[in-house]
Amino acid sequence: MYEKNLNIGYLLDFYGDVLPERKRNVLDMYYNEDFSLAEISEEIGISRQGVRDIIKKAEEELCFFESKLGLSKKMTDLAQKTDSLLAVAIETQASAVVCEGIAELKKRIEQ
Amino acid sequence: MYEKNLNIGYLLDFYGDVLPERKRNVLDMYYNEDFSLAEISEEIGISRQGVRDIIKKAEEELCFFESKLGLSKKMTDLAQKTDSLLAVAIETQASAVVCEGIAELKKRIEQ
Repeated sequence: MYEKNLNIGYLLDFYGDVLPERKRNVLDMYYNEDFSLAEISEEIGISRQGVRDIIKKAEEELCFFESKLGLSKKMTDLAQKTDSLLAVAIETQASAVVCEGIAELKKRIEQ
Repeated sequence: MYEKNLNIGYLLDFYGDVLPERKRNVLDMYYNEDFSLAEISEEIGISRQGVRDIIKKAEEELCFFESKLGLSKKMTDLAQKTDSLLAVAIETQASAVVCEGIAELKKRIEQ
């Protein structure tokens, strides 16, 4: 049984575009569309072991990017900080334009 | 004459860690330490054409990452938005804790 690493779905959203199309598609079917290995195997016409190998290599690439760049973690941290800042701004009755600006910033960080 | 692309230095700071060590070192010597091709050639013991080839391929990799992920541009945009927000916060007399929080956020974005 191949175990899903739930963090991979997030890394796929983040770094997926640098993966070759085939790898990205397989990971997408597996993590976002919840296909089984057998279903992916049938869909793209390779063995289940072949699917497993593609998934493993693609996961390793995504983890390599995050280990080197750490940008997924950085964006998550920034979104949390912005959220806390918005709470403080509301609490201290900052002007609407400031509160909206912080909320807009959070949206952009999360995009 | 090989022309320097000034944007590469920034992309190197941003994505450089995903490049293999040799490529990263050559780009670093060329863009950050301002070595000439001849000096790099002497330093690492390969021809000037070899150095030129390494630089070209490494530049292409960095540009590929940015074209796919756009994270360097995203961070620059976020830093600018945060800067504008700080100006608005100061202008509308937001509390010190809000202004400091925005300034801290900008520092983290630029780190």
